[in-house]
Amino acid sequence: MENPDPPRGTRGSGHPVVTLLTDFGLQDPFVGIMKGVILSLCPTAALVDLCHGTAAYDILGGSFLLQSAVRSFPGGTIHVAVVDPGVGGPRRPILTQIGDQLFVAPDNGLLSYPMASGTVRAVRVITAREYMLPKLSATFHGRDIFAPVAGHLARGVPPERFGPEIADPVRLPIPRPRRDPSGRLVGEVVWIDHFGNCITNITGEDLQAFAAGQTRRLRVVLDGREVGAVVPIFGDVGLGAGGAVLGSTGHLELFANQGNLAGKWGVGPGASVMVDFGLESAE
Amino acid sequence: MENPDPPRGTRGSGHPVVTLLTDFGLQDPFVGIMKGVILSLCPTAALVDLCHGTAAYDILGGSFLLQSAVRSFPGGTIHVAVVDPGVGGPRRPILTQIGDQLFVAPDNGLLSYPMASGTVRAVRVITAREYMLPKLSATFHGRDIFAPVAGHLARGVPPERFGPEIADPVRLPIPRPRRDPSGRLVGEVVWIDHFGNCITNITGEDLQAFAAGQTRRLRVVLDGREVGAVVPIFGDVGLGAGGAVLGSTGHLELFANQGNLAGKWGVGPGASVMVDFGLESAE
Amino acid sequence: MENPDPPRGTRGSGHPVVTLLTDFGLQDPFVGIMKGVILSLCPTAALVDLCHGTAAYDILGGSFLLQSAVRSFPGGTIHVAVVDPGVGGPRRPILTQIGDQLFVAPDNGLLSYPMASGTVRAVRVITAREYMLPKLSATFHGRDIFAPVAGHLARGVPPERFGPEIADPVRLPIPRPRRDPSGRLVGEVVWIDHFGNCITNITGEDLQAFAAGQTRRLRVVLDGREVGAVVPIFGDVGLGAGGAVLGSTGHLELFANQGNLAGKWGVGPGASVMVDFGLESAE
Repeated sequence: MENPDPPRGTRGSGHPVVTLLTDFGLQDPFVGIMKGVILSLCPTAALVDLCHGTAAYDILGGSFLLQSAVRSFPGGTIHVAVVDPGVGGPRRPILTQIGDQLFVAPDNGLLSYPMASGTVRAVRVITAREYMLPKLSATFHGRDIFAPVAGHLARGVPPERFGPEIADPVRLPIPRPRRDPSGRLVGEVVWIDHFGNCITNITGEDLQAFAAGQTRRLRVVLDGREVGAVVPIFGDVGLGAGGAVLGSTGHLELFANQGNLAGKWGVGPGASVMVDFGLESAE
Repeated sequence: MENPDPPRGTRGSGHPVVTLLTDFGLQDPFVGIMKGVILSLCPTAALVDLCHGTAAYDILGGSFLLQSAVRSFPGGTIHVAVVDPGVGGPRRPILTQIGDQLFVAPDNGLLSYPMASGTVRAVRVITAREYMLPKLSATFHGRDIFAPVAGHLARGVPPERFGPEIADPVRLPIPRPRRDPSGRLVGEVVWIDHFGNCITNITGEDLQAFAAGQTRRLRVVLDGREVGAVVPIFGDVGLGAGGAVLGSTGHLELFANQGNLAGKWGVGPGASVMVDFGLESAE
Repeated sequence: MENPDPPRGTRGSGHPVVTLLTDFGLQDPFVGIMKGVILSLCPTAALVDLCHGTAAYDILGGSFLLQSAVRSFPGGTIHVAVVDPGVGGPRRPILTQIGDQLFVAPDNGLLSYPMASGTVRAVRVITAREYMLPKLSATFHGRDIFAPVAGHLARGVPPERFGPEIADPVRLPIPRPRRDPSGRLVGEVVWIDHFGNCITNITGEDLQAFAAGQTRRLRVVLDGREVGAVVPIFGDVGLGAGGAVLGSTGHLELFANQGNLAGKWGVGPGASVMVDFGLESAE
């Protein structure tokens, strides 16, 4: 049988997918330890690292990266996200279903992007002590709470067993682009990737609405300096030259072709991005 | 069936867990190559990276990290540890059972911490040529000896097939805290984590014994400078302020709240740590 | 049943092995996203990271690392390699069988080393739209083309379904050592590993042919400076001293014992390496 539909709903099946996103880095065994706890409960789980290099304590950055990944995973995937500066304090551990996937995280806004992008079916505070490790440390709830909850979910324990629904999960404000007084589209950089590309909060839909009915080429300004034109692919500008493309996350992405734009210009998340029309026609 | 007991004894079962800890880093394919060898022998092994960022050739540091992880893994887990500056030379490859888990490593002290913390059932030198790759390189026994031995163990080959017992595995001295002439508890930093927290060799039991019958708050001095009080959680001190908590490994851990203590103070493993009583009462 | 022959031909079996090699790094979720796509199609795939730290856009370097890993993997393994500066442009996605393994990559020379080392059975351009994601981005064909093709291959779709054979895949020239006018063997550094060892393009066979009938010890010069003698193992020279060994990839490898030769000397890929005879006898 070839090319059947991708399987849906891996949870409770033979090989539930469990992803991990943290700010733990990889030089310590923290992530491996979480995997040990999950495999102790569900030996057939397929464990996938999303990323562990989020800036320490950067909750909203981690949330953006999480959202950029979720749609590439099958239904039933369990996403465990731990960027948790308040570990050990009063912040609640939560569990929620968004679309057909499950999320386990501290209630500090880390799920803001997925919650804003999908249908949130229920948010629960995790209170059932029997699904946590017997002894809770003050510093590593990734191991003591989030990993075992994911392991039990992967075995098929239904979400309602973990605790009661809540109506007030923390949602951080997500920065959205706006029009400035001159009519230009103004957004900001939300993520610098490994290649130094600057991913912005301006979506393809934002651009389409902005450019509707126009034939002139769009040009992009970063931190007050012109980067170049909006082009279909990286290779449309010369080596080292700047431009912007609609990137793989569906957001406008500023780049230098085979260069490192963010490194060269010294910009980071939060830098301002401005889109307007150049004099040249796009066609 | 919900929340059954975690499965024990994954070795020889459908999905044996095999962990890897090395000083190889992740920019080279060394770790991936070891996984290829293991999967060639046992395609259903669940492979878990503990960490590969141990300082090159730091045997005792690697041993501490290994021990911090083992109790989070199920019985029957096979831990492969390779920090091996003597590769190709006379140091022996060994295999041992500690508690209900198996360890494969060079005999250079890399198993010192696990051996000191659990019941060592037998230490064997690996001599059976048929469980190694046909051709041994001079530089990469992780691929040629340790990975294939782990793969055969994962398939269910019993440990006694790999070689005879030995009585003299290398055990490095593990630094333990002591009392100084003024009665203070003196230990040292054994590990700096990704967040710049300084994990010490002072355990929760050491602290309890030291503080027995006292009501005054404990305070901690690092490298001659006061860090702050011993508190229950990171969030008990202000942002950026210092303190110490009982960390997830069961050791006293010095920190700056959402700061990077080790980075700010320029301290590393081996730095002295002193605990005594401040003037303030703990309650 | 102990120590049976390693299983061959994992593809289409229960647990096909799929490896990933990219220049994406690990701080972004790119690699995790590719794994999500593969697991969506083949939930039982055993995913292995070869490495993701290749210098950005370094096609030939990535190709060397890929080749250094492939022989450690079982027959039927699917290798997905993505170093793809031309993404979105006219470069073709290809699929090929080399020996008993499959490779999926952009047609930019990334498979040059494996093609030069094994029997290439057929190279196909990937044209079958049904094995790609429905929507192709301009910047991330790892997610949109290479990962889903690997997932379908892992499920057992035969290679000929993906597109027609081509006769002209890109093969980059692979630097080979030569004799200089004085009869010395001259090669170059092709890879610096995590330990600062300098892996050269001089193979064990090259050395044997060069040294045939000689009893004098070989000595090695790097970038015009003498490193030391060719020795059997790292430990044959003093701590910090230099030498060369036949490394695990079958290539001559220059090192400083427990030092970091490349770091200390400031050399990188492309640095010249010269081998000749010293005055001392090897035995």
